[in-house]
Amino acid sequence: MGERTAISIDGMGGDRAPEIVVEGLERFAAQRSDLHFLLHGDEIRLKPLLQQAPTAAPRTEIRHTTQIVAMDAKPSQAIRRGKGTSMWNAIDAVKSGEAIAAVSAGNTGVLMGMSLLVLRTLPGLRRPALVAAWPTRKGVSAVLDLGADIHADAEQLVEFAIMGAAYFKVVYHNPDPKIGLLNIGSEELKGRESVREAARLIRESKVKLNFHGFVEGDDIANGTVDVVVTDGFTGNVALKTVEGLSKMISAMLMEALSSSPMSKIGAGMALPALKKFRAKVDPRQGNGAVLLGLNGIVVKSHGGTDPVGFARAISVAAELGASRFRVDIEENMKRLTASSTQQTV
Amino acid sequence: MGERTAISIDGMGGDRAPEIVVEGLERFAAQRSDLHFLLHGDEIRLKPLLQQAPTAAPRTEIRHTTQIVAMDAKPSQAIRRGKGTSMWNAIDAVKSGEAIAAVSAGNTGVLMGMSLLVLRTLPGLRRPALVAAWPTRKGVSAVLDLGADIHADAEQLVEFAIMGAAYFKVVYHNPDPKIGLLNIGSEELKGRESVREAARLIRESKVKLNFHGFVEGDDIANGTVDVVVTDGFTGNVALKTVEGLSKMISAMLMEALSSSPMSKIGAGMALPALKKFRAKVDPRQGNGAVLLGLNGIVVKSHGGTDPVGFARAISVAAELGASRFRVDIEENMKRLTASSTQQTV
Repeated sequence: MGERTAISIDGMGGDRAPEIVVEGLERFAAQRSDLHFLLHGDEIRLKPLLQQAPTAAPRTEIRHTTQIVAMDAKPSQAIRRGKGTSMWNAIDAVKSGEAIAAVSAGNTGVLMGMSLLVLRTLPGLRRPALVAAWPTRKGVSAVLDLGADIHADAEQLVEFAIMGAAYFKVVYHNPDPKIGLLNIGSEELKGRESVREAARLIRESKVKLNFHGFVEGDDIANGTVDVVVTDGFTGNVALKTVEGLSKMISAMLMEALSSSPMSKIGAGMALPALKKFRAKVDPRQGNGAVLLGLNGIVVKSHGGTDPVGFARAISVAAELGASRFRVDIEENMKRLTASSTQQTV
Repeated sequence: MGERTAISIDGMGGDRAPEIVVEGLERFAAQRSDLHFLLHGDEIRLKPLLQQAPTAAPRTEIRHTTQIVAMDAKPSQAIRRGKGTSMWNAIDAVKSGEAIAAVSAGNTGVLMGMSLLVLRTLPGLRRPALVAAWPTRKGVSAVLDLGADIHADAEQLVEFAIMGAAYFKVVYHNPDPKIGLLNIGSEELKGRESVREAARLIRESKVKLNFHGFVEGDDIANGTVDVVVTDGFTGNVALKTVEGLSKMISAMLMEALSSSPMSKIGAGMALPALKKFRAKVDPRQGNGAVLLGLNGIVVKSHGGTDPVGFARAISVAAELGASRFRVDIEENMKRLTASSTQQTV
């Protein structure tokens, strides 16, 4: 195999695996002819699916295992007994250097824990952070941490800012993303102490960040900054709150539009416009939450995604895996550490 | 005047005061013929407006002052120099017993600080909390704290639960509202320590609450519980994030529907249905955030509200002011204190 570059894929993770996984792989393979794939899972199920995927098949090697992580697995148990599962093997191929990144649509908690166990954090970073894309008026922003940890002190928030900036540069081809710290209140009531201290650290250290300052919740949808930094508790609550609201609005809109014959006809006529609207706020476009800060790239696809979403997750993995992402983080971490050493002296 | 029951209104607070205030007052007065009103502000501006409000006028007494709190005032300064402003006088009428509740659409930070200064917290409660209604699939839920404070320990979360339950009983005529603590993660990763400790306190104390347990962000829109309890930082971020998203979705939907002649006609035909949809998610229906936990009721109307919204805010004030709300909180606080005393023994 030699010089080939490969992406490692958990064939068995996700609500509709392995079908959706292989369909997504085929879709992605059509976009990128230079990449190879390691597909981990049950050969008996994967082989016939790959036969229906003529573009991906010649560049895909099945790594057989019958062990899988259940979607409803309890993280601690599943991680302890995880060796040899398709998820573990997918991550392990990144550690061994066979693949530049791994993708799984499996159980989030297990994937995070297993990735941390197998790959460990980058030198100097204390905890990984989960980042994902968020649709905004201007396009898309990255928000982190979305729940890899339940809290974050000031230094961790700065680490998140460094990781989020490196991520946004690569995935959205923006050389100088604007960073904001999520906070509450007016100028005078400056909000949480750890957030204020993080702002001071960013401003006074030599870390290279295009730092905008504080942002509030409504700045996320407004696209005020490219990267929104917060602790995992707040980030996870905000993410799930917005998911719940989006589903509610979508359901209520459809209900309203089918409430009378007249509105049904009207909705039918406006259908192309409504579809365009849905595409803009389509969460699948942003599919692929990434666990940042490890010695290797692991992308978490949404468990209920479709082939479009899974292909997008592979694309994120491919871009990050082939980029200067890790070096970028390490350089900024060195600048941060250098500044704090100077302060101590 | 004797036995009359009055609501105290800041005539000069809000983006379009005093016009919107008086129009909202007139609208409310048509619904409730038993209440009187103290209207604080500039007589020269208020008198001609009241002449256009024939239902409210005979029951409204103008309390003249030319001092007002600017909408963009800095809280600490405005509070210190606040005596004699229309906002201060509106709150002070509650303290003196002339009114059962106060309403203002003025600067949120100033109103919260001034209310706390004038009215003080109920005995045993440490901090007030800001509560507001949140549209859900099932109707409406109450969420608190939305930013009266930036953090909350376990005991404060329990106090918020007690206050939120008392509020929901009165404003939504539900004798036994279901309470949830906002948290993240699965059963196993049980989230934040203070939240877990609050759950334990509620379960093990003798406090009377219909306690559901933990909820996650998406449970808010799903209407899983009637009252969602969280700290002010998380609550404020969630509220503003959702406000930003709602505006974005609304703008994008309108843009999509006017993107072609065909979709414009379709949207026109579906207009009644679309209006019904907007009414359901209309934030004005929930207008009237309340600062809970003080020796008196203060309702904060949205600064940019219209007469419908301002009338709703007065209605919330009237219901809370005339209810057992305060007794309900005090009784539950006693049960909580009794339990913790027993534990200490």
